[in-house]
Amino acid sequence: MCTMGVGLDFFFFPESVAVVGASRTPGKIGYELLRNLVEFYKGRMYPVNPMADEILGLKCYPSVRAIPDKVDVAVISVPAETVPEAAVDAGEAGVKGLIVISGGFKEVGRDGAERERRLVEAVRKYGMRLIGPNCVGVYVPKSGMNTLFLPRTRQGFPPHGHIAFVSQSGAFGSAVLDWAALRGLGMSKFVSYGNKADVDDADLLEYLRADPDTRVITMYVEGVENGRTFFKSLKETTPVKPVVILKSGRTEAGARAASSHTGALAGQDRIYDAAFRQSGVIRAYGMEELFDMALALALQPPSHGPRVVVLTVGGGSGVMATDALSDLGLHVPRLSDQTVERLKRVLLPIASPYNPVDVTGSARDEHLIQAAEILLRSGEVDAILWLPYYIVPGVTEKLNKEFMRLVSEINNSLQHPIPIVGVATGGSYTSRYSAEAESMGIPMYLSPERAARAVKALVDYGKWLREVGTYDEYVEKVKKFLYTFS
Amino acid sequence: MCTMGVGLDFFFFPESVAVVGASRTPGKIGYELLRNLVEFYKGRMYPVNPMADEILGLKCYPSVRAIPDKVDVAVISVPAETVPEAAVDAGEAGVKGLIVISGGFKEVGRDGAERERRLVEAVRKYGMRLIGPNCVGVYVPKSGMNTLFLPRTRQGFPPHGHIAFVSQSGAFGSAVLDWAALRGLGMSKFVSYGNKADVDDADLLEYLRADPDTRVITMYVEGVENGRTFFKSLKETTPVKPVVILKSGRTEAGARAASSHTGALAGQDRIYDAAFRQSGVIRAYGMEELFDMALALALQPPSHGPRVVVLTVGGGSGVMATDALSDLGLHVPRLSDQTVERLKRVLLPIASPYNPVDVTGSARDEHLIQAAEILLRSGEVDAILWLPYYIVPGVTEKLNKEFMRLVSEINNSLQHPIPIVGVATGGSYTSRYSAEAESMGIPMYLSPERAARAVKALVDYGKWLREVGTYDEYVEKVKKFLYTFS
Repeated sequence: MCTMGVGLDFFFFPESVAVVGASRTPGKIGYELLRNLVEFYKGRMYPVNPMADEILGLKCYPSVRAIPDKVDVAVISVPAETVPEAAVDAGEAGVKGLIVISGGFKEVGRDGAERERRLVEAVRKYGMRLIGPNCVGVYVPKSGMNTLFLPRTRQGFPPHGHIAFVSQSGAFGSAVLDWAALRGLGMSKFVSYGNKADVDDADLLEYLRADPDTRVITMYVEGVENGRTFFKSLKETTPVKPVVILKSGRTEAGARAASSHTGALAGQDRIYDAAFRQSGVIRAYGMEELFDMALALALQPPSHGPRVVVLTVGGGSGVMATDALSDLGLHVPRLSDQTVERLKRVLLPIASPYNPVDVTGSARDEHLIQAAEILLRSGEVDAILWLPYYIVPGVTEKLNKEFMRLVSEINNSLQHPIPIVGVATGGSYTSRYSAEAESMGIPMYLSPERAARAVKALVDYGKWLREVGTYDEYVEKVKKFLYTFS
Repeated sequence: MCTMGVGLDFFFFPESVAVVGASRTPGKIGYELLRNLVEFYKGRMYPVNPMADEILGLKCYPSVRAIPDKVDVAVISVPAETVPEAAVDAGEAGVKGLIVISGGFKEVGRDGAERERRLVEAVRKYGMRLIGPNCVGVYVPKSGMNTLFLPRTRQGFPPHGHIAFVSQSGAFGSAVLDWAALRGLGMSKFVSYGNKADVDDADLLEYLRADPDTRVITMYVEGVENGRTFFKSLKETTPVKPVVILKSGRTEAGARAASSHTGALAGQDRIYDAAFRQSGVIRAYGMEELFDMALALALQPPSHGPRVVVLTVGGGSGVMATDALSDLGLHVPRLSDQTVERLKRVLLPIASPYNPVDVTGSARDEHLIQAAEILLRSGEVDAILWLPYYIVPGVTEKLNKEFMRLVSEINNSLQHPIPIVGVATGGSYTSRYSAEAESMGIPMYLSPERAARAVKALVDYGKWLREVGTYDEYVEKVKKFLYTFS
């Protein structure tokens, strides 16, 4: 299978998986986990349970060692006390990786910490790697590897896509996957690493940095133990692909809450903030913002500068977009007289040819297209915030296609391609065309404020790439997958 | 019909409506507008068009004067030049109110301003009132009065509810209605007043203040000409019901954009900000925030203080909620030893009985219910941020009902009822139960950050009511409609 990712590939593309603690009882973790795996996973599966002959049509084994096949990954969901011996069993069987779902380790105090030490000892002894304990594990749409244990009736799973998500919180991770499924947000890999007794943020960053399926890495982080390694690893990753992090426990009360949640001591936020900035990390302050920004970074090139033009069908939304962009320190510059004149020539008399370029609700497709062409070729624009208002009478079902054809044609010819971020506030009809635009590569948002944050991420990342000198290289690489729709 | 609202009631509950400029051509404003009216409106309708005998099955008249019935409202959608004479015709016919959809007035320059002057002259002469010109008019789910002109295939309309929305931008107003329809957000009245040549913010505030169907007034404002009257009117309204305003043109670039949009000069934002604060207005900085806050104010009592307890099934989300609340200056206090002990007694050993109260993903319904009861009765809590995580195995379809029964029982016995705001991050399954909770009166949000803003609105409004001395009176009034589910 995929071999570009270093070291940890077997966790995401295993050829065979054992489920230690598989159960016959619906509702139990060991049952639901196996059930999800059966539904998604394409490789060979072996339930391990000494009390059962068969579960979900699969032959059961009393131990991993008893399985007459090479097992890549053992997913362990047994009571904490028996986890270390299950690890030894897996080690003896030549398993490469353990994913330990069970809780009852470092997070519960001294006894648990001792148990975790013994688990890690076994892992090291047999040269295995370990994700967890106290986690929900991994989900990889491409291989079907799925260790989550909530029943499918309650939990949705997103399709394959280009955003990787690493979560320190298993429950939040599950909820995000479920939300992403409904939102139609594609993911390349999901990892919940729990106590990170072995595989940690730095390991995952190293893997995802080289992963060809991942264009953007997103992380939910509460605390970091090995800060130096973590930030070194971030610094090695951000020149190659964007990393967006939601770090919680930012405030005094939040830090207190975080320390009682994972046992990690939430560091002083100012230190994190400075370190994130010095590492080129884009910081998010909420779930929606995290994925709003990630989506733009996955679909659009970075911006080569801070000059944003708002191209809108609705005057009010244009004003709100301008406010939101200004709030974030972006420029919404006046256009040159020449560009204004060109715009006047193609737009309706009631249109406003300044910035925002307000084609008005009386506009037709061609007004948006022609204005976009003038702006993209003007040399005065680093990013476009596009507000098409699909509901107005003159905007038709052809708009998205024509707009994308124009954008891809011009951008493919530019040294510094110009990112486009869209806003479509509305209901059912609007959602349909908004989803279409997104499927063609334009990230679409419900409100100008959210879209402005996405533009900001593209501007910040472009700035970082220019600072570290990898802008041209990055743009060459992303041009290969952007604008490839036909 | 309803007579509590002063003066402008005929606009929202007319017994008969004439559509001046009705058209036989699908796609034209005069056709689509009439079509929406036919679909929604329950009163008598008269298309006016001298070139047609019948439109959409309704007999056509050459003028309003020719209609053999008393006409309450004439909706005018004819070329700007002929609007003043159409106004005279309506005036002669004894019409009470005009809604002028047509553009081409003050917003297009000197000629337009002169036309607008003549229109207002006619309105005054005949003692009529005028909404517009250059607007999309009104939508009232209860009476079906609907002057919007986008076809139903593109534009959705929300159900009856308790939020009134007044918008200076017609396009943004339409998009919001469309979004609200999809979101299931109920509205009492929508008004787009365009150039506000007659009926303005102050008039609408006076009307909505007395409107029994409206619990919260929301406004989208770009500029205000008559500031003194506007703020006086706000100050008279906020002791009675909450007003949430999204004012755009806040930044320098945004103000420039606003002035080219409606011709209104966007005032210095600091002046607005101070005036809003002195008037007890809750200010929103985006569309989602505007309605997130309005929903909480429509469904929950105001908070009597700033102490918020986070009651969560997910540790990570609890930390994020705590951060978000702290960011907004709210208190997430430590609980007393006594309350912590009480919580410990009912929760699982792995639960965290501090604040956030983290019942963990292993919790069952009763843990959430018992924790809520202890908190509601503790005297240490002014608001609860509730994160139920419907997807975890121990949370069942009974949770919402039992939770609401408890909340309503306790709150009805308290002098200062404790507002509850919920978070449900997730997909299809979660959305179903989230919508159920909302239908029972708990405003639900996708993320902790958005819910925290809603809590902040309840805290701010409670503080304002105590300042102006109407807290008790307001709470008595809202208790009558809160917690009335069975």
